[in-house]
Amino acid sequence: MGTLALSALAEPAGPRVNGARLRAHLEALSVFGRAAGGSFADGVSRVAYSDADLAGRRYVMGLMEAAGLKPRMDAAGNISARRSGSDSALAPVLFGSHIDSVPSGGNFDGDLGSLAAIEVVETLNEAGITTRRPLEVVVWSNEEGVAYNSGVCGSRAAAGRLHPDELERVWNGVKMADAMRKIGGNPDRLEETRRKRGSFHCYLELHIEQGGTLDEAGIPIGVVEGIVAIDRYEVEIRGFANHAGTTPMPQRRDALLAASYLTVAVNEIVRREPGRQVGTVGQLSVTPNAPNVIPGLVRLTVELRDLSSAKIAALAEQIRARAGEIASRTQTEIAMRPVAHDSEALADPQVQASIEAAAAKLGLKTKRLPSGAGHDAQVMAALGPMGMIFVPSVGGISHSPREFSRWEDCARGADVLLETVLEWAK
Amino acid sequence: MGTLALSALAEPAGPRVNGARLRAHLEALSVFGRAAGGSFADGVSRVAYSDADLAGRRYVMGLMEAAGLKPRMDAAGNISARRSGSDSALAPVLFGSHIDSVPSGGNFDGDLGSLAAIEVVETLNEAGITTRRPLEVVVWSNEEGVAYNSGVCGSRAAAGRLHPDELERVWNGVKMADAMRKIGGNPDRLEETRRKRGSFHCYLELHIEQGGTLDEAGIPIGVVEGIVAIDRYEVEIRGFANHAGTTPMPQRRDALLAASYLTVAVNEIVRREPGRQVGTVGQLSVTPNAPNVIPGLVRLTVELRDLSSAKIAALAEQIRARAGEIASRTQTEIAMRPVAHDSEALADPQVQASIEAAAAKLGLKTKRLPSGAGHDAQVMAALGPMGMIFVPSVGGISHSPREFSRWEDCARGADVLLETVLEWAK
Repeated sequence: MGTLALSALAEPAGPRVNGARLRAHLEALSVFGRAAGGSFADGVSRVAYSDADLAGRRYVMGLMEAAGLKPRMDAAGNISARRSGSDSALAPVLFGSHIDSVPSGGNFDGDLGSLAAIEVVETLNEAGITTRRPLEVVVWSNEEGVAYNSGVCGSRAAAGRLHPDELERVWNGVKMADAMRKIGGNPDRLEETRRKRGSFHCYLELHIEQGGTLDEAGIPIGVVEGIVAIDRYEVEIRGFANHAGTTPMPQRRDALLAASYLTVAVNEIVRREPGRQVGTVGQLSVTPNAPNVIPGLVRLTVELRDLSSAKIAALAEQIRARAGEIASRTQTEIAMRPVAHDSEALADPQVQASIEAAAAKLGLKTKRLPSGAGHDAQVMAALGPMGMIFVPSVGGISHSPREFSRWEDCARGADVLLETVLEWAK
Repeated sequence: MGTLALSALAEPAGPRVNGARLRAHLEALSVFGRAAGGSFADGVSRVAYSDADLAGRRYVMGLMEAAGLKPRMDAAGNISARRSGSDSALAPVLFGSHIDSVPSGGNFDGDLGSLAAIEVVETLNEAGITTRRPLEVVVWSNEEGVAYNSGVCGSRAAAGRLHPDELERVWNGVKMADAMRKIGGNPDRLEETRRKRGSFHCYLELHIEQGGTLDEAGIPIGVVEGIVAIDRYEVEIRGFANHAGTTPMPQRRDALLAASYLTVAVNEIVRREPGRQVGTVGQLSVTPNAPNVIPGLVRLTVELRDLSSAKIAALAEQIRARAGEIASRTQTEIAMRPVAHDSEALADPQVQASIEAAAAKLGLKTKRLPSGAGHDAQVMAALGPMGMIFVPSVGGISHSPREFSRWEDCARGADVLLETVLEWAK
């Protein structure tokens, strides 16, 4: 009786995910790639194509089967499963994420979106709801790209954007083509994995923010405006290796001193303009790298990210100009070479609005923000409307065993995913 | 007849070294540590305790034997050999250098003084000269200190200044004690290698200048006034490794950015004061060192040199203070730890005068100058009178494959060494 009275007072509540079950599944998945003797808090190393990845993928397929789905694997090793709609001629609502990790990564990046997608199906099953459109749950292969330096690999294969040369790359002594075979794919039939534009009604992905914006603001739901463009440069600085004791300071051509001026310059140039752009010198090596030798050669990477490709191109030009000044001042030669470019991928405005409406219905505050990290969603954006839901990362920590999202936030994110799926599957 | 007439006109010439043989020996030694397919001009990587070092040491012992000497190895791996004098009760004249190199080093640093010492003996043998005092040729082990960050290691062992803790250091997976064993030393009996004060009459070392002073001035012989003090520090900078795409600029704790500010600061602090002091950040490593991860940890070395220990100590204090400011500004932790100190070592005035007299006898101009590089001679200065002879380094280039000293200058330096040995062995 009391229950009846309560639901009579409240707005008619839709189905809600089972947060405890979602947590149990995340904890169960975390054992695949966990160090011996470790716990959930020790994070995970489930690099794509590893034995841990293979085991994790089997676990996920088992969860799909338990949810009444029939998982199938495409030629790139992507796992997907359809749930019928009342009008099966319509394009499905596609949603999911990935379960591969970086080495010493966390248990939420990718895992949350993958297992929440299955939880959405379980919840609909329990509520006896059949959507009009079919639903399709997907777990993409090799999103992180640690293996073969080939990020969002499975989704790119599905979009016809995996270059055949990449299949020939060797990593840990194994060709990518053979690694795909190991997890059940078939690199000879990649063409069959292609998804056409319009083959899905929209693509949705729930993910942890991986930054600290939502956590700091105390807002449970992020509505992703788009995924940033990324430009990556390799910089080579040639000075002259000479004796650190006998070469007077004014006669030095110190490549590391030049690299240091440049690293500081990248930071200053990126920070002095308003906006949310980021710039990183993450990799740097010194030759000959001895305490008593003036560094003769430094190689470093510069990575720039922003929602606007034009903006990071302009930043790169400023950095290039500054590099010229530094080279002249330090008597070194600095060459800056572009090595990778990913364009920005904007989320569909209608999907963003749906996510906000879903959150509002659940009484959850939202904040629009860009995604600084790459995601499979950016690849899908080229094939149809795309949207992403973020939940807070505690302390903004990700790609680390210390990556954590509060369980209640995970459940809230899954509920927003569920509501958005229902809206788009109408 | 013509020859007789000529020598009758000239001042009675003493014995002269065989410059062509000295050159041939330097070229022969250069193959040990040469890159496959390289030439003499490609320099050498003969880091102490490496297989190349072992092979080079065997070659040098063979040369000693060919010169009628019986090389012996002490517990620290120093190679030495005595040539009898007419009064064998007297302390010997000790002279030599080292044959280990920095990675990608040159073929003159150390090699010249080592092989010239053997050439002096060969020359005396051929001239049938027995000196009053015994002579002792020495090739010290691990002078450069690239291995184990432990410079003038062999001569310090001989002076009882090798700390037992150093033997426990691990480098490339091997303990220093085991590295010593590899080259034929015996770290358990280091005490036996001790040379006492007064155990040699004087110590002489011929070396390339490694700076550009003599070459610029067109003067063939440098008379070393003293060897600079050297302080070496290891700096560890702890930031926090996080995702380079999702971590806003103001929230970063970027260890490489902090290291870059510090590297620039070292250069500025050293240069802003008048004098000949130098300061170098020569070695730097980044963790995790990936283009898309903010560096969480950087380790680097700071090395300071000047003829005054007090001056470099004051510079280090300025650097430490600046490191504190940088740590605070970049939200990192910076620890600066002294790892090595070599005090300045002054050359003996009488030995300096003898070198000048020897050069004058040979018709060679001289210039007094400090040594910016450390040498085994600085360690020997604590045990007896010490002197060093410099020959010009073309372009002031050293610790580089482009290190070069003209062959005629090498022979001139060896002749000055020979004359000085003869003077002190009287």
